[in-house]
Amino acid sequence: MSDYSKFNKKKNSVGIIKKKHVVFSDKIKLESGMLFGPISIAYETYGTLNSDKSNAILILHALTGDSHAAGYYDEKDIKPGWWEFMTGPLKGIDTDKYFVICSNIIGGCMGSTGPSSIVPETSGHYATKFPLVTLGDMVTAQKKLIDYLGIKKLMAVVGGSLGGMQALTWCVKYPKMVVSAILLATTARHSALAIAFNEVARQAIMADPHWNNGYYYSKKKPNAGLAVARMIGHITYLSDESMRKKFGRRLQDKNNVSFNFNTDFQIENYLHYQSKKFVKRFDANSFLYITKAADYFDLAKEYGNDSLVMAFSKALAKFLVISFTSDWLYPTYQSKLMVKAMKKSGLDVSFCEIKAGWGHDAFLLPSERFIEMVKNFLNNTYKEI
Amino acid sequence: MSDYSKFNKKKNSVGIIKKKHVVFSDKIKLESGMLFGPISIAYETYGTLNSDKSNAILILHALTGDSHAAGYYDEKDIKPGWWEFMTGPLKGIDTDKYFVICSNIIGGCMGSTGPSSIVPETSGHYATKFPLVTLGDMVTAQKKLIDYLGIKKLMAVVGGSLGGMQALTWCVKYPKMVVSAILLATTARHSALAIAFNEVARQAIMADPHWNNGYYYSKKKPNAGLAVARMIGHITYLSDESMRKKFGRRLQDKNNVSFNFNTDFQIENYLHYQSKKFVKRFDANSFLYITKAADYFDLAKEYGNDSLVMAFSKALAKFLVISFTSDWLYPTYQSKLMVKAMKKSGLDVSFCEIKAGWGHDAFLLPSERFIEMVKNFLNNTYKEI
Repeated sequence: MSDYSKFNKKKNSVGIIKKKHVVFSDKIKLESGMLFGPISIAYETYGTLNSDKSNAILILHALTGDSHAAGYYDEKDIKPGWWEFMTGPLKGIDTDKYFVICSNIIGGCMGSTGPSSIVPETSGHYATKFPLVTLGDMVTAQKKLIDYLGIKKLMAVVGGSLGGMQALTWCVKYPKMVVSAILLATTARHSALAIAFNEVARQAIMADPHWNNGYYYSKKKPNAGLAVARMIGHITYLSDESMRKKFGRRLQDKNNVSFNFNTDFQIENYLHYQSKKFVKRFDANSFLYITKAADYFDLAKEYGNDSLVMAFSKALAKFLVISFTSDWLYPTYQSKLMVKAMKKSGLDVSFCEIKAGWGHDAFLLPSERFIEMVKNFLNNTYKEI
Repeated sequence: MSDYSKFNKKKNSVGIIKKKHVVFSDKIKLESGMLFGPISIAYETYGTLNSDKSNAILILHALTGDSHAAGYYDEKDIKPGWWEFMTGPLKGIDTDKYFVICSNIIGGCMGSTGPSSIVPETSGHYATKFPLVTLGDMVTAQKKLIDYLGIKKLMAVVGGSLGGMQALTWCVKYPKMVVSAILLATTARHSALAIAFNEVARQAIMADPHWNNGYYYSKKKPNAGLAVARMIGHITYLSDESMRKKFGRRLQDKNNVSFNFNTDFQIENYLHYQSKKFVKRFDANSFLYITKAADYFDLAKEYGNDSLVMAFSKALAKFLVISFTSDWLYPTYQSKLMVKAMKKSGLDVSFCEIKAGWGHDAFLLPSERFIEMVKNFLNNTYKEI
């Protein structure tokens, strides 16, 4: 990791950037059949769109991500965007060469319309009156942003985890608009195991009396439930190996255990710390909506009459699929299933399983090989267009 | 599984049995240093103790188990004990040949003293005034029962998961009393991953306002929190493969998803159903106490100055260690670490990894190979004594 520490310095960054908002006042048709709008989209852009508008890359964020993929909000800001190591001048996604867009998904809570948004012409929040949006609906909203920016074709859609599901959806829903796609640590549909973890996390939120059927915005928030949900998620993003290396059975404060229900082990303290940070920045209802959308996502069922090969036969993009050895949430076999179906559909696909001990979260951690693969794939795509 | 369905018939059962209780009025010294008593132990026995008292086998139950390993409580009882397929006439643990004992652990809630017990000479429950008991303390209490039964030597201690940890503790704490030990799907200490899951489950219980610092016995119980805790546990007992085979992405009620936060998938419904059943029979405080005891358990640290080889050098028993391929809670590598240390200590140990798709719970499911291995190991032990 140390080799890439230089990429975290501000001098290699896109620098100071500004979060933008655009409101689309006409309604979109959701997959549930409902008409919904207006929709506000929060987004950021890095780099410059070239004259023929052929160098645009759309970055798609994961469950708890946002539009802030790279850069800093002001001079005093010490925390860069969530994919700073990958996105910037001369980096994997080279902002000297490409025009990079990242937008917050609808249903989220980082600036785009979601359950915490105010219902137009009222003073109340949507809360659980917000419609259940799918991955397809998220992409429909993103398409409006891309149209608004005057871009006819995306040179690449790039995403990990839930971002990968959005990228997949782009490729089959708007095939003519996508030249290439990079899919990281993702799946064409959730396994029963992934659904099970999400459902338990949702139950933890809904069991918190402060959840109050989603109507908590002017009251005490369901932070205890959301913290448990986050801890469950967090465990699934790590791996047995990474936890063993990072924490093992090391005790928190002393050489002896407490013989009570306080925090004894460092792993416990880490989960508490992470979940406390998380509840400050994330909305419990958005957690419910986005995990449900992820559980519903089923590329084969929605686009291929239950056949992944048929679903991919709609796509025109060339693909780079990357899985990580220790990812047990979306294990390599799920990436291989996609790759097999892509090949059967005659698509141009490169696949790589990267050896990484960090579990599902590996796509959020820098490694030379990972960055070079993304860089080379985009370079080649750029040359071909 | 069907080959062994015959073992579930009453005719192959130990038949109608009775749960017994014994109270030890003197206090025991807990590993925390505290003196604690009196202690009540709930237990059951099957088969007959031979004249030289050499045919006794102690079965040790897992987290949510109890003393009811085999048989039925009355003629109308349709649900046999939890290890009926393994325990009975001519079965793996042959009650025609052996005298079998199974007792509820202290800290539990199935008849032995635990947080839900009444504090002597009061009308109040221990609740969280109950001391934090360790695996060593559980075994100290079991030793009192074995002494009370007049048994000097156990032909075998047998346990899966937390039961395996008790069996391990028996072998190093009272080595002269244990001739052999069968350790199933267990570990010499919890990984950070296992601790993480337990801690999130505990947080789910303690986040439920009905938990009320453990004082809920005369009030509404923290069932919502306990249900989430159980669901977390349940997922770790299964495997990706078993869930895929049993549930996949099958929908619960109809061909379409609900577009709300109801139960859509069968896996969700299964977890809800199981957790609802569970909260009726299990005490939330016991869940806290027992999981904490499991997290504290560290055979090397407690008995070998951090060396597993040194810990096992205290043992005299011969061992059968069995792990299951799809167990990701206590994976095979953890059994292998034990076996390696046992061999280095010069112990007689047989090890087998059984191919099973059912995850950690595999030791609770019948398979011919598994039953035969237990049977043969006990047969050989019996011949040698």
